[in-house]
Amino acid sequence: MTNSVFITFEGIDGSGKSTQARRLAEHLRRRGLDPLHTREPGGSPGAEEIRALLLTGDPARWSAETEILLFTAARRDHLEKTINPALMAGRPVISDRFADSTRVYQGATRGDLRAIVDDLHARMIGREPDLTFIIDMDPAEALSRGLARQSGEDRFEEMGLPFQETLRHGFLALAHDHPERCVLIDGNRAESQIATEIAARAEAALNL
Amino acid sequence: MTNSVFITFEGIDGSGKSTQARRLAEHLRRRGLDPLHTREPGGSPGAEEIRALLLTGDPARWSAETEILLFTAARRDHLEKTINPALMAGRPVISDRFADSTRVYQGATRGDLRAIVDDLHARMIGREPDLTFIIDMDPAEALSRGLARQSGEDRFEEMGLPFQETLRHGFLALAHDHPERCVLIDGNRAESQIATEIAARAEAALNL
Repeated sequence: MTNSVFITFEGIDGSGKSTQARRLAEHLRRRGLDPLHTREPGGSPGAEEIRALLLTGDPARWSAETEILLFTAARRDHLEKTINPALMAGRPVISDRFADSTRVYQGATRGDLRAIVDDLHARMIGREPDLTFIIDMDPAEALSRGLARQSGEDRFEEMGLPFQETLRHGFLALAHDHPERCVLIDGNRAESQIATEIAARAEAALNL
Repeated sequence: MTNSVFITFEGIDGSGKSTQARRLAEHLRRRGLDPLHTREPGGSPGAEEIRALLLTGDPARWSAETEILLFTAARRDHLEKTINPALMAGRPVISDRFADSTRVYQGATRGDLRAIVDDLHARMIGREPDLTFIIDMDPAEALSRGLARQSGEDRFEEMGLPFQETLRHGFLALAHDHPERCVLIDGNRAESQIATEIAARAEAALNL
């Protein structure tokens, strides 16, 4: 019996998706599985090198088009070196962000970029998650959480509340357009309550 | 009167194209022009950062697909930040390698990659040179020159003579397919004789 199910967590910064991804990985370990817990951008040694180009230094040095190419290069490496080998070995994979983030963030930056993102994804990545948890929450609350963290990788957060509202609507539209794999999660609840709902959904996808 | 002509030099390593690119830049300066002399991969600060990912460390850490994405990201940055501004300012641009190198090198590595290269170029770069000098020479001679340089960026040269022969045929095919911009130059001659031919062709393109 295989547990090779590819699960992603998406949402705006500060929505709690990284916490929930970690909690799901811990939950599946307690259930006796061996999940791979990874994240984007990054997730493989090569992709982490590309992540450093994208997230450190002056981000304004890259145009939106160059950024999309770099994100896609990092994702291709992450998929080849980390995600696919784990799935081939029968392990569940949990990724904190994947292609949906590029769709929503780049699309929110400039509407005409979405066609480029979709085209590059179709040609160079081709793989969608089996299950995507989209954590939805109040952008004002998420923004205050995100800024409180001071990760040094917060340029999207620095774009302020109206941009976060646009991102939120981008994620809601994705959930609407891909009901076959997306589950919308109300993030305005207690962390443990959210974790319980996610664990139940993941267990169903894994036939546990 | 504008001198915004985009000239590229292509050919296998050791063919003398870098020398000829430099000589043409010097020649145009003597004629009173202000050419921009650049090269790939690299040619802008961001593209040089990507070049470092591609050409240092273990090159086997990237798949061919990831490499193509990184080369295209570097080219997009080079075009936006270096080539286009110079052309807009009315300067001739001379680049040591451009998109033709990716077409030929990646295509020689794995034939099915050429469609990916062409598709990414059409969508993300879109620009062809006005004039391309393809320096053709005996691969055995070029290989011995290239290895003598020990640049530390010689993994293609390390693939040996049969691969260099494949590359040569790739460049010859390009020259055949794009006669509107490609000029095939016999590189098996004295350096100054080659430079004189190239200078004359470039002057004609610049209406000097």
